[in-house]
Amino acid sequence: MTKDLHFDVDEFRARLAAVKREMARRGIDILLLSEPPNQNYLTGYDAYSFYTPQMVIVAIDYDEPIWVGRLMDRISAVMTTYLADHNIRSYPESHVHSSILSAYDVIADIVKEVGGERPRIGVEMGGYYYSARAHADLARALPLAEFVDADLLVGWIRLVKSPAEIAIMRQAGQITDVAMERVIDIIEAGVRECDIAAVAYQHLISGTAEFGGGYTCAPAYLCIGERSIAPHANWTEERLPDSTVLNIELCGSRHRYQVNLARTIVVGKPSAAFENLAEVQVEALNVGLESVRPGRTCSDVFGAVHEALARHGIEKEARIGYPTGIGFPPATGERTAALSRWDETVLQPGMVFHMMTGLWLDNAGVTITQTFAVTENGHEPLTKMPRTLFVK
Amino acid sequence: MTKDLHFDVDEFRARLAAVKREMARRGIDILLLSEPPNQNYLTGYDAYSFYTPQMVIVAIDYDEPIWVGRLMDRISAVMTTYLADHNIRSYPESHVHSSILSAYDVIADIVKEVGGERPRIGVEMGGYYYSARAHADLARALPLAEFVDADLLVGWIRLVKSPAEIAIMRQAGQITDVAMERVIDIIEAGVRECDIAAVAYQHLISGTAEFGGGYTCAPAYLCIGERSIAPHANWTEERLPDSTVLNIELCGSRHRYQVNLARTIVVGKPSAAFENLAEVQVEALNVGLESVRPGRTCSDVFGAVHEALARHGIEKEARIGYPTGIGFPPATGERTAALSRWDETVLQPGMVFHMMTGLWLDNAGVTITQTFAVTENGHEPLTKMPRTLFVK
Repeated sequence: MTKDLHFDVDEFRARLAAVKREMARRGIDILLLSEPPNQNYLTGYDAYSFYTPQMVIVAIDYDEPIWVGRLMDRISAVMTTYLADHNIRSYPESHVHSSILSAYDVIADIVKEVGGERPRIGVEMGGYYYSARAHADLARALPLAEFVDADLLVGWIRLVKSPAEIAIMRQAGQITDVAMERVIDIIEAGVRECDIAAVAYQHLISGTAEFGGGYTCAPAYLCIGERSIAPHANWTEERLPDSTVLNIELCGSRHRYQVNLARTIVVGKPSAAFENLAEVQVEALNVGLESVRPGRTCSDVFGAVHEALARHGIEKEARIGYPTGIGFPPATGERTAALSRWDETVLQPGMVFHMMTGLWLDNAGVTITQTFAVTENGHEPLTKMPRTLFVK
Repeated sequence: MTKDLHFDVDEFRARLAAVKREMARRGIDILLLSEPPNQNYLTGYDAYSFYTPQMVIVAIDYDEPIWVGRLMDRISAVMTTYLADHNIRSYPESHVHSSILSAYDVIADIVKEVGGERPRIGVEMGGYYYSARAHADLARALPLAEFVDADLLVGWIRLVKSPAEIAIMRQAGQITDVAMERVIDIIEAGVRECDIAAVAYQHLISGTAEFGGGYTCAPAYLCIGERSIAPHANWTEERLPDSTVLNIELCGSRHRYQVNLARTIVVGKPSAAFENLAEVQVEALNVGLESVRPGRTCSDVFGAVHEALARHGIEKEARIGYPTGIGFPPATGERTAALSRWDETVLQPGMVFHMMTGLWLDNAGVTITQTFAVTENGHEPLTKMPRTLFVK
């Protein structure tokens, strides 16, 4: 059977070693990883199976992570991870959406096998895939264990990408650029919103002649007309009128690594006020990007943007960016560092952020954004689409 | 501002009344709905914003549900729900992905406002969007409240669809049919897997000439070649060889209602054994569909399929179907009734299931499926694609 791995096994081992170092520092014996991106990061696992209980178990004294999931998805673990066969475990179909049987009992048994009856267990309390019931079931099945919150333990390690990861993200950026170009091409009065979205998806998935894209971890956002002031609205099947504003955000995905890009497109003639708003937004974005370098903090970058906007009388308090990397639904970004007033994380080469200095006024919004990697001297943009307002 | 509602307000009120009746029966004062499909069902809310904390609060003595979400998504609640303005609440941007501030404190304050200090609170313990931390934060902020598990309380009500919901699901089925037709059209040796997926997405989103599709709640599954035995694998960018098997599952989405459809397509000449496997699978599917009628149970339907397969010496223990309806990522189906040996739910008109009698052998799999609504006398198929193996 062909193993479909996108990184050397040595890279997976280095990631595991980094996680174990942090576990040792915190006195954690067993780490239960419920977040699909963390499972992917440490093992390579990639299948859309995480809507039933699924866990990667890292035991401080055990050589490899252990994958546990539904029996019918075991084959995907064989195909997409570097793990030895005995480290791929499963629970039977009878445990799927059962009101009686809990998959967490099976997981608890494996915890006892590799960690004994009294381990100190790190769990991802704030994760998307660690429900209140998962925690209650595990606590019941492991009454002598101590549970500690290890949410984002792996996330903070993932924040700094390796050269191999950055190479994949460059490809994701190329896919995103292609999709956005095609979308801007077809925008004109009379086109249905859903047909614009269809073109976006078509090219996000088809990718380039050299490589294809994967499913995205969030939908394409097409916030059009009066919905341009709603950041996370859906498209409709309405036809574009003669004059309107489109805020479109796409995230291309390559081997689950995601690069986001948003642009504002005006159909018809934009008002002078709207053109000015866009200029201010791009100016702030460029100021923010130029302020990026290793040693500065996230709040330094926020401050630079904040100051650029304040010169135009605009106060923006929302975060202006978040990290991206491995993406699975429903996340649009990583939950660690944020380009915000309150975040003192020091920038390091290999970090990747989607900078989003979007401005929403009462009746219009502009979202012109840039995903970039922090480099030794500054930043590398991961998409090439010009940072400007498009008029069609 | 245009309200974008897909049901009469009376229908929303009837849904709320049904939920309150069940709350009263269980002695629940406050129901905290963290699941996006339940939020959509009771209020109409529809935006991709649920990756930060978001709750719909139903208080037994309060006339409308209360929506609480992130400040920047408030506008989407104004646009997509029938709620009065004072029942649309929000927490500030400072609470987004903060390690210090919890959005659940804001939610707890609203609970106290409408339910007092000592309410009996139902929460969705097994939901995708009720994390262990959400529960811990709420328990801390509401020390005098009593928490009970109300997971699937709304789900069991949602299981029986109204005529208006079935009408939307017929449209979703039409979208799914169009996408599958186009996908089968382009399949041939030499085509890249990602380009097949791209066509699927293009048509799932573009929909028909009359109406468009929405984003899907799970990716298109294209399990091809040796990955045809992995039910939830990803597509790749490989070109189809001269002879291979494709198992493709698509879910079309219309106003968030989803209809699933899977077909098996063979490129080249299928072996006699594989053709036979497909025939057996379709026979079992048809037997299962013919066995559907109000008054029978889910396990009756499972039993009919089980017996049809047993006649060919095949034992299938996995559930053979699940309900579909309102779909948000990451769910591929609803978590209530299952067409399984263990489920004694009695079928009623208006229930919708995706029947999936897929068979996976060691080196090949066949997945030919049917989504149907239970009717007064039997079933109504919600897709029209012939139930057969396709050979290209």
